[in-house]
Amino acid sequence: MAKEKLVKEITSMEEDFAKWYTDVVIKAELIDYASVKGCMIIRPYGWAIWENIQRIMDGMFKETGHENVSMPMFIPESLLQKEKDHVEGFAPEVAWVTHGGAEKLEEKLCVRPTSETLFCDHYKNIIHSWRDLPKLYNQWCSVVRWEKTTRPFLRSREFHWQEGHTIHATAEEAQAETIQMLNVYAEFAEKYLAMPVIKGVKTEKERFAGAVDTYTIEAMMHDGKALQSGTSHFFGDGFAKAFGIQFTDKDNKQATPFQTSWGVSTRLIGAIIMTHGDDNGLVLPPAVAPIQLVVIPIASHKPGVNEKATEVYERLRKVCRAKIDNSDNSPGWKFAEYEMKGVPLRLELGPRDIENNQCVLVRRDNGEKITVSLDELETKVPEMLDAVRDGLYNKALANRSEKTYVATTLEEMCDIADNKPGFIKAMWCEDRACEEALKEKAGVSSRCMPFEQETITDKCICCGRPAKKMVYWGKAY
Amino acid sequence: MAKEKLVKEITSMEEDFAKWYTDVVIKAELIDYASVKGCMIIRPYGWAIWENIQRIMDGMFKETGHENVSMPMFIPESLLQKEKDHVEGFAPEVAWVTHGGAEKLEEKLCVRPTSETLFCDHYKNIIHSWRDLPKLYNQWCSVVRWEKTTRPFLRSREFHWQEGHTIHATAEEAQAETIQMLNVYAEFAEKYLAMPVIKGVKTEKERFAGAVDTYTIEAMMHDGKALQSGTSHFFGDGFAKAFGIQFTDKDNKQATPFQTSWGVSTRLIGAIIMTHGDDNGLVLPPAVAPIQLVVIPIASHKPGVNEKATEVYERLRKVCRAKIDNSDNSPGWKFAEYEMKGVPLRLELGPRDIENNQCVLVRRDNGEKITVSLDELETKVPEMLDAVRDGLYNKALANRSEKTYVATTLEEMCDIADNKPGFIKAMWCEDRACEEALKEKAGVSSRCMPFEQETITDKCICCGRPAKKMVYWGKAY
Repeated sequence: MAKEKLVKEITSMEEDFAKWYTDVVIKAELIDYASVKGCMIIRPYGWAIWENIQRIMDGMFKETGHENVSMPMFIPESLLQKEKDHVEGFAPEVAWVTHGGAEKLEEKLCVRPTSETLFCDHYKNIIHSWRDLPKLYNQWCSVVRWEKTTRPFLRSREFHWQEGHTIHATAEEAQAETIQMLNVYAEFAEKYLAMPVIKGVKTEKERFAGAVDTYTIEAMMHDGKALQSGTSHFFGDGFAKAFGIQFTDKDNKQATPFQTSWGVSTRLIGAIIMTHGDDNGLVLPPAVAPIQLVVIPIASHKPGVNEKATEVYERLRKVCRAKIDNSDNSPGWKFAEYEMKGVPLRLELGPRDIENNQCVLVRRDNGEKITVSLDELETKVPEMLDAVRDGLYNKALANRSEKTYVATTLEEMCDIADNKPGFIKAMWCEDRACEEALKEKAGVSSRCMPFEQETITDKCICCGRPAKKMVYWGKAY
Repeated sequence: MAKEKLVKEITSMEEDFAKWYTDVVIKAELIDYASVKGCMIIRPYGWAIWENIQRIMDGMFKETGHENVSMPMFIPESLLQKEKDHVEGFAPEVAWVTHGGAEKLEEKLCVRPTSETLFCDHYKNIIHSWRDLPKLYNQWCSVVRWEKTTRPFLRSREFHWQEGHTIHATAEEAQAETIQMLNVYAEFAEKYLAMPVIKGVKTEKERFAGAVDTYTIEAMMHDGKALQSGTSHFFGDGFAKAFGIQFTDKDNKQATPFQTSWGVSTRLIGAIIMTHGDDNGLVLPPAVAPIQLVVIPIASHKPGVNEKATEVYERLRKVCRAKIDNSDNSPGWKFAEYEMKGVPLRLELGPRDIENNQCVLVRRDNGEKITVSLDELETKVPEMLDAVRDGLYNKALANRSEKTYVATTLEEMCDIADNKPGFIKAMWCEDRACEEALKEKAGVSSRCMPFEQETITDKCICCGRPAKKMVYWGKAY
């Protein structure tokens, strides 16, 4: 009964995907709404997912030679204005601090929407010689963008992220860094989040404010919409010139360094929900699941059941993030609760199982149940966690393949965009006017020009002039 | 030469302790000043210390059943005002956000100076029954207080900290939590930072805004001044009443819960510097040192030296956070550099050492050099790291003992306060007027009423009426 009640409380995905999403976010206890509109409280279960993401990714950053730093959260107005394109991109959506205590500030400060300007200001102080390069910095923090419409994890006025900021002696080195970090993001998304992504470069229109090139990983959500899941920017020497950063090179000449920045955010939690979730709630990839396996005693009033379940739990917590629920709630209630929370594996153990020295393991991703000897648990559980990851990845990949279309005419593109949510592969002449026309006529934006190019036709789908790039188009979050 | 140059660049502690402090903070590359007055950039070496503090302490919090969450950084003015004492304490020093993009906000928002009000607002949403209690939450974040005078780590407009916020069914439980967390702080300070602390309770005058009781750990810096290093507050049910938080108890009656909060901040890095540092720079307790041991090859142009040093480094990085410096700087320059950075152990390895299958280990805390067989490194290095911790602790304890005085008359207290910086133990009647008189006449504030009480006399040092408490008095950061 409890189970039915819980299940009924979630809108089904088919009925209303957006409502399903917010239901999951609340019912799985990932967030609570805050008193400031557009901000969110990330609850223990949601924050634990982010901590797992941080831990794994921070390890990948450190392995590639990066160091963490902490910049202030405030940027003086004059500093934000130093790079022309950058300020144009961000000024309309920043929160301004105008008073400290009762006093009006001499210069207003914005709460960082991103920290390029702060890093540049710091680099100017600490970089003098080629010996000071490169600096490979990253910070974990929250930033603020005063968005009009917001949704938990996907678009909020304050969000948590990491922002890498690096500075190099040569353009080649900075470019290599940009690509390296895109690859780190792609590896993280596919291996740990079980989420296939398309790597590519953004069109000029979709570039980050102030960047020469913006690279992206684009994922497809269950409903066919795209989610930009991580970006890596090559800045050339534009910021360095705007901020007057120079160094003495090996030939004792003054030179200008080259920069990058790259970031992923708590948006990834939204990506996990919309890639893997189902009508029973959240489905978490094991690598980032706060609880990887929950032990549920069956008929726990029978002698020996709780004791044996605890023994099994104590063994399993050494091989994974395990939990035991021996509360007085019914097994049915517990099944629903941990399904809602997306726990990858459930272990059921009742009196008959104990007699037979076995238990039942149930996969959250596909419902598969297998009976396992208690002697084999330490090997079977990690194997099954891997199987869940693979199952999730393959399901997401199949969804993406199924919802990826090819269009050769504008009419065809409009038809697909109207009726079949997904990615549309089509050729483009690289003219911004055509990109804008497709947005207006078909309602799609360019997601990226993938590294893996194909030649569908030799003509731009919009204007018919010679095509230069194959582009993924789609509707996006 | 390089060494002499570096050493000369630091002011000596005796000459000017404040200047010595800022010299160390800059030369050890802990911080850089930011473009916003009173804010700081925490550089990789400084941030790595904080990361080590976080990792250890977070483990201690989780062991005691706490979960991490993330609250928004903004508090609407009306929310901040809900608890009268609290808003009086904090409103004068908060930064106000008045605009989002070009638009003026309907209600101004302060950047959190502390998050009691946000947690209360959330608790009101999620607590309904006794089954929902306790909630044992913590968050790692930065907060903002618009201070007039600032110093790196000790008092800055933005600072990083953790803030624990818990809510319980009974006052007893909340009180026990308050004391438990004070003990966690004391254990952390003494065991991992090698910094002796005095545990006690604050006088009413020094209490946190809105608290019933504020407990503190007080440390003594090298110059005899006190540093409040961590506080734990018992709130009674004051906040819960102000915010209308209620729950249904086991007897099905409406009841009001009880709360606590507790925090330590990047101030602890200031405490480390001023407790252990010397005229050669920083001295780091091994538990939080980003580099615990640095390998320095001597006469590294000689065949085999760099190879052997690298081999030793590869072995040692498995037992501690080791680094090798085989740059082309001179050994003298390197010695000075890692002394400045407070690396606990230096390992010197030259051609003659290699011939003898040995190396030289040098302790940063007392300069002691010992020759160690290369075969014993894996056991000797951890032992010596422990010895450094013990050495630092004992030295700090000796400093505190030496600079702790007893006063029985006001005259005596004034004399000590003027001439001998340190703690002054003296009796007090618990009247706030006397506490204020001592501040005015002797220039000291009450640090705490220690748990370990002593009876020095039976009279208040100020008014001569019967004494109720022995208090530690002193000048503080």
